[in-house]
Amino acid sequence: MQATVIYGAGDVRVEHVPDPKIIESTDAVVRVVRSCICGSDLWPYSSMEATPEGKRIGHEFLGVVEEIGSDVSGLQRGDFVVAPFVYSDNTCEFCVEGLHTSCLHGGFWGDDKVDAGQGEAVRVPQAEGTLVKLPASANDPALLPSLLTLSDVFSTGHHAALKAGVTERTTVTVIGDGAVGLCAVLAAKRLGAQQIILMGRHEARTDLGRSFGATDVVAERGKEGTAKIRELTGGRGTHTVLECVGTLPAFETAMRVVRAGGTVSRVGVPQYQDGPIGGLQFGRNVTVTGGVAPARHYIPQLLPDVLEGKIEPGLVFDRTIGISEVPDGYRAMAAREALKVQIAF
Amino acid sequence: MQATVIYGAGDVRVEHVPDPKIIESTDAVVRVVRSCICGSDLWPYSSMEATPEGKRIGHEFLGVVEEIGSDVSGLQRGDFVVAPFVYSDNTCEFCVEGLHTSCLHGGFWGDDKVDAGQGEAVRVPQAEGTLVKLPASANDPALLPSLLTLSDVFSTGHHAALKAGVTERTTVTVIGDGAVGLCAVLAAKRLGAQQIILMGRHEARTDLGRSFGATDVVAERGKEGTAKIRELTGGRGTHTVLECVGTLPAFETAMRVVRAGGTVSRVGVPQYQDGPIGGLQFGRNVTVTGGVAPARHYIPQLLPDVLEGKIEPGLVFDRTIGISEVPDGYRAMAAREALKVQIAF
Repeated sequence: MQATVIYGAGDVRVEHVPDPKIIESTDAVVRVVRSCICGSDLWPYSSMEATPEGKRIGHEFLGVVEEIGSDVSGLQRGDFVVAPFVYSDNTCEFCVEGLHTSCLHGGFWGDDKVDAGQGEAVRVPQAEGTLVKLPASANDPALLPSLLTLSDVFSTGHHAALKAGVTERTTVTVIGDGAVGLCAVLAAKRLGAQQIILMGRHEARTDLGRSFGATDVVAERGKEGTAKIRELTGGRGTHTVLECVGTLPAFETAMRVVRAGGTVSRVGVPQYQDGPIGGLQFGRNVTVTGGVAPARHYIPQLLPDVLEGKIEPGLVFDRTIGISEVPDGYRAMAAREALKVQIAF
Repeated sequence: MQATVIYGAGDVRVEHVPDPKIIESTDAVVRVVRSCICGSDLWPYSSMEATPEGKRIGHEFLGVVEEIGSDVSGLQRGDFVVAPFVYSDNTCEFCVEGLHTSCLHGGFWGDDKVDAGQGEAVRVPQAEGTLVKLPASANDPALLPSLLTLSDVFSTGHHAALKAGVTERTTVTVIGDGAVGLCAVLAAKRLGAQQIILMGRHEARTDLGRSFGATDVVAERGKEGTAKIRELTGGRGTHTVLECVGTLPAFETAMRVVRAGGTVSRVGVPQYQDGPIGGLQFGRNVTVTGGVAPARHYIPQLLPDVLEGKIEPGLVFDRTIGISEVPDGYRAMAAREALKVQIAF
């Protein structure tokens, strides 16, 4: 089959790789229908050290079950499924608590001998726990982009908003107009937020953000951006800040625009080890939360709104390509030509 | 009157200062009955730059109302009161939310022209909002130490536990066997925690911690301490970590011993600006919360348990001195000879 392999910064290739097959009795093999490129894939694309053996990449996909191991219940050939961006058994103490990203038997796509999502098929470990079967009504091509966002990007936006404690009584700042930031806007709106300020400077994206529920857009960054947020909030800052970038300046901005007693919720993968978490933040009782989103936990909760068309997070996809075009998809996303690229098979 | 003035590191003096009097119509003057020295007073005692004019110090006191301004309701001469360690109007948007430490008209004892708590009397700004009147039954000498802890140290321990989300279902690590750490143990126990691990190495203190509810004591620090906590928690760490020291190593330990998905709640004043808050913490979905405790908000909630003798946080006081002995009180606390020193007038 064809699959995507990254060999280093800027070096993504589509190659013939062995077809996946059942290895463990808890595996399934899924034929991929839709996959996509994640903002987080751009971190290795920009900085990964060259490795001659390469590494499989991609962690978001919809597909059809093709084969199942002998210990997999609840799934059968032909089932249409969505895979969250971390596989998990759905039964360990962390999964039971809804923290599937810390599953004792889980792991990441593309690690070790596990396939990744940007390919024609995937061997899925812990298939029974990992895959969520979609109802027949999901077989509508118009729904595929939104269903695909449940793998990661919309679940991640939801995680940001939920961990921040967004309700109809909290004001919200979303930092970042990437696909995760826009999904965080949509998630905050879905949870009832009345004021949602989107920090971003790419007009096509912030326009989509407005249609998702952003009430204000702040294009300024750093001190000017902070001043604008203060101006929009009576000098206080917002109760919640959803940090959807992952750079240190974005986190610093988050800590400056949050209201005293408020919460900064991070879902952008931190590109820093240490950050400002000292006396200033302490004096203002600022909480820092968030992390890797347990998409598996959220999919069943978010699915009905997608199926009913109440939300359409799939609008973050502005380009659809075939598998052979994946290298150009990376280039387009890195150049900010494309917001988020989906791969149709 | 006599009051305590700090002139620099190691230089605390008791001096004659002008008697306080009403300046604003919202003031009261309180004759101090009990005051004490706080662990946080030891930070300036160890490192404050020498200042020829000196600075008044102390922020915890019980006293009797001696005079009230014309705009103060609900208080009268002779009322026995407790003052939280930040003054506040109790009516602004932050106070209404229970975050009195961010009061729009509040401030700290000893700042500007405000008296501090380690003296014979105090002018109390925003007296109506700040002071909590105690019932007649509180006039029992045996209760005074515990009532005094509501000013700061027990309210702070409670803040740590409450913000961490301690319940009967959460395991707890408390870092630090100072008075705040021991009060955090007591607060966690009060909230129902079943396993409370106290990290401390001063046996008299950890013994008091056990009597407050600690189920385990870990004397080791750093990597050895982390390993011990892991051993006591099936390798997981605890759901909540109450960081009651404020140094960077204490915060680093907190981030290592917290369970995935858990919460580090800080009440030790951070002696650092930046800390470990990057990818490792993000991957494990660790929340960092806490800050300066809104004691004013907690006093009415905690008072009944003190009055009924259900809890006795006043046991953290192991030395009682007169005002003239305050410099030696500082020396004794800094040398860890005394756990917490109270000043009786």
